Amino acid sequence: MTDHTQIKAKKVSDSATEMAQLMMPEDANPKGLVHGGVILSLADKIAYACSSKHAGHYCVTASVDRVDFKSPIRIGQLVTLKASVNYVGHSSMEVGIKITAQDLITGEITHTNTCFFTMVALDENNKPIEVPRLILETEEEKRRFKKGEERRDIRLKARACA
Amino acid sequence: MTDHTQIKAKKVSDSATEMAQLMMPEDANPKGLVHGGVILSLADKIAYACSSKHAGHYCVTASVDRVDFKSPIRIGQLVTLKASVNYVGHSSMEVGIKITAQDLITGEITHTNTCFFTMVALDENNKPIEVPRLILETEEEKRRFKKGEERRDIRLKARACA
Amino acid sequence: MTDHTQIKAKKVSDSATEMAQLMMPEDANPKGLVHGGVILSLADKIAYACSSKHAGHYCVTASVDRVDFKSPIRIGQLVTLKASVNYVGHSSMEVGIKITAQDLITGEITHTNTCFFTMVALDENNKPIEVPRLILETEEEKRRFKKGEERRDIRLKARACA
Amino acid sequence: MTDHTQIKAKKVSDSATEMAQLMMPEDANPKGLVHGGVILSLADKIAYACSSKHAGHYCVTASVDRVDFKSPIRIGQLVTLKASVNYVGHSSMEVGIKITAQDLITGEITHTNTCFFTMVALDENNKPIEVPRLILETEEEKRRFKKGEERRDIRLKARACA
Amino acid sequence: MTDHTQIKAKKVSDSATEMAQLMMPEDANPKGLVHGGVILSLADKIAYACSSKHAGHYCVTASVDRVDFKSPIRIGQLVTLKASVNYVGHSSMEVGIKITAQDLITGEITHTNTCFFTMVALDENNKPIEVPRLILETEEEKRRFKKGEERRDIRLKARACA
Amino acid sequence: MTDHTQIKAKKVSDSATEMAQLMMPEDANPKGLVHGGVILSLADKIAYACSSKHAGHYCVTASVDRVDFKSPIRIGQLVTLKASVNYVGHSSMEVGIKITAQDLITGEITHTNTCFFTMVALDENNKPIEVPRLILETEEEKRRFKKGEERRDIRLKARACA
Repeated sequence: MTDHTQIKAKKVSDSATEMAQLMMPEDANPKGLVHGGVILSLADKIAYACSSKHAGHYCVTASVDRVDFKSPIRIGQLVTLKASVNYVGHSSMEVGIKITAQDLITGEITHTNTCFFTMVALDENNKPIEVPRLILETEEEKRRFKKGEERRDIRLKARACA
Repeated sequence: MTDHTQIKAKKVSDSATEMAQLMMPEDANPKGLVHGGVILSLADKIAYACSSKHAGHYCVTASVDRVDFKSPIRIGQLVTLKASVNYVGHSSMEVGIKITAQDLITGEITHTNTCFFTMVALDENNKPIEVPRLILETEEEKRRFKKGEERRDIRLKARACA
Repeated sequence: MTDHTQIKAKKVSDSATEMAQLMMPEDANPKGLVHGGVILSLADKIAYACSSKHAGHYCVTASVDRVDFKSPIRIGQLVTLKASVNYVGHSSMEVGIKITAQDLITGEITHTNTCFFTMVALDENNKPIEVPRLILETEEEKRRFKKGEERRDIRLKARACA
Repeated sequence: MTDHTQIKAKKVSDSATEMAQLMMPEDANPKGLVHGGVILSLADKIAYACSSKHAGHYCVTASVDRVDFKSPIRIGQLVTLKASVNYVGHSSMEVGIKITAQDLITGEITHTNTCFFTMVALDENNKPIEVPRLILETEEEKRRFKKGEERRDIRLKARACA
Repeated sequence: MTDHTQIKAKKVSDSATEMAQLMMPEDANPKGLVHGGVILSLADKIAYACSSKHAGHYCVTASVDRVDFKSPIRIGQLVTLKASVNYVGHSSMEVGIKITAQDLITGEITHTNTCFFTMVALDENNKPIEVPRLILETEEEKRRFKKGEERRDIRLKARACA
Repeated sequence: MTDHTQIKAKKVSDSATEMAQLMMPEDANPKGLVHGGVILSLADKIAYACSSKHAGHYCVTASVDRVDFKSPIRIGQLVTLKASVNYVGHSSMEVGIKITAQDLITGEITHTNTCFFTMVALDENNKPIEVPRLILETEEEKRRFKKGEERRDIRLKARACA
């Protein structure tokens, strides 16, 4: 049994993570447009890194909220992902991820999508383990926490109905 | 201009697709569990294959409905995906995907998740293009079509509110 | 020592395996045709999965019979492999694999090749281990078993002469 | 129409090719032994390089003779492949490949296998195109040419019977 | 002919680039430590992205200054690269890259190395093309420009002696 | 404690290593030219193999001397690397690597670059461990040893100044 009072709370900025990757020929479908799966896979990796940093334990993906792909991404573009922990439950965390694609030549940046991954921290025996509380410092962080909590409630209700 | 009356309707079984892939060491996180992104990426590939078969044109991912990961997948397991077109709009299609993981040694099969991808068919200039109607032959296919239509309506409403 | 009478026989259908993979730009040579090695590698993976399912132990490749490539495969095609155990010896199994390639746009399916892999089941110390007998249910399965036995005899003779 | 008398014959040594690659964790099955498909894929790449050098045109794989895997290969070993053109027909070539695996730490080298790939040279329209004659300089090269011719005859007979 | 007076100067911050990538099992040598080549390859990619952003043209690597690897990197660590253009010549640019590795669990960050890539911008015919001047806004940027200029002079001298 | 007098010296030829790899579409930037990072990564792998063979222990990269890229490499070319140990210190070795690129169709070979990697041998606890002396048999080997020693001295001085 962990003595829960001992787990030190962490700030949102402590685990905020940025990743970026060049879209290469291997990321394309036969039309030269990037497969949606490449973006989903990158989003999963940053959700993993960001949540593991907050938890201090390796995490696994529990669910992904609906993701819309607003505009196609092309080979040669630089895809940047910015992730931060929005909300924490007992052993779960919601990670919000903002994804943009930049044309290196024109410099133009497109907001591709925003998505939400729910991650669960696991101990050495792959059992869920408690994660640190989240210190909310800005109004924006408080707003995101509330929204994340709402999405968590919707998820739990949906699961109860399924 | 395509003469739309000329596009021949297709059966669900005409584009039903099955894929399977062994989970290899490169698919794991440092705990030896498969990254959720690997599964999302496979789901995107089969959605692409299945919808392109139905449309007779290459497709891109428009959106992914919420995906739940019920149980972790391990290296050495065989992940199988079965996809079929549930619903077709004008140029969009909903592809339903059932994912299972099999332990090769014990033979045990786990139903990992079910997910829904909305795909859009594109012409040579990357503009949306009309897709064939769907011939519904079984009660199950009719039920799935109706469910897919409902999800489409929820998506459109959500977009209108955003 | 394993008590051999205890190993439960299995049906051909118990280990029958299907895999499919989209041919991506990374699978091509500079002419845009798929490298034969990509197909051989997929065939090896399904032989591994199919034989490990039958054996209940991980297997390694012992030999590959002659493989003919009848027609070139193109990027964007969906390559499907269907494998089943044809013949079992003491610790070895012959896996038969039928490979087809489908053009997603036209729907046309080409029978690319049929090939035979001999796999050996290994125990924890990488020593050959006995595998379950094969329950033959159909005339086709009996015919394949006999053909597999013949190919085994040819292999053993060839080895004796080498 | 190519004026065939203009194609300059080439020596075996002109296209002899050597490749080597470290076996990495991504090349292993769950038991830590290298998948046979990794070796087959490397053999296909060197057959492609060696035959394309001789032909002066990009080549595709027409067939692979039976391959035996004598001893398992481990992660961390250096796999070396040596290839040369054994025999040339009109547009086809047989490439012989000798494969060894070296343990970097002990220095021990194991002869893993020898295999034979038949490659066909293609022109810009993917039609078979005539390849240069082979200048045989040593007794070994003459012996290999004769053996390659015999294997070609067996292949043609087998195809006629199929 | 480009009218050189027309090329608009850019700030250092306009092309500053950040990338980050999780070190996966496939990045390791048999001891579980990350191959130096993985880091060099990531550094080359960010140098490519950063210089292409500044130039408004795709760039190629002309040279890499000496790189020291101070401490080994482990699988599961998050490697972050921060790059900016230090110095610009006519068609060449020096990109400075700072590399750190973070242990996700402990949060500890190690400064792995700093390296310098010289990149050249190419036009559509792969000929060197003039790049925008660099607007230096801070004392740090001016210091880096001067250091980059000195390294360029050393390189040119070294080449003259070679 | 190792009894140093017991470590048997090795010849340069004992660890000389050759690798070659086809440049594939996945190795290119959007202009179709090979990324410098692909070459640096291959150089690191051969430095690893060559030094580990000499040391009889797995090695890690300590530093890379300045590398110049003289001419761009294209997809479809065969890149060959030849490496040998130039110089040995106590636990470090300098590996010299000569890189060439061959156009398979024309047969033309270009000397791309020569580079120098300093590698360190590690024991089971990742601590530096003594490596065998180098037996110098030719004038060329003696010249290279002296040059390698000079580069080592420059590196040590540079480190002292940093």
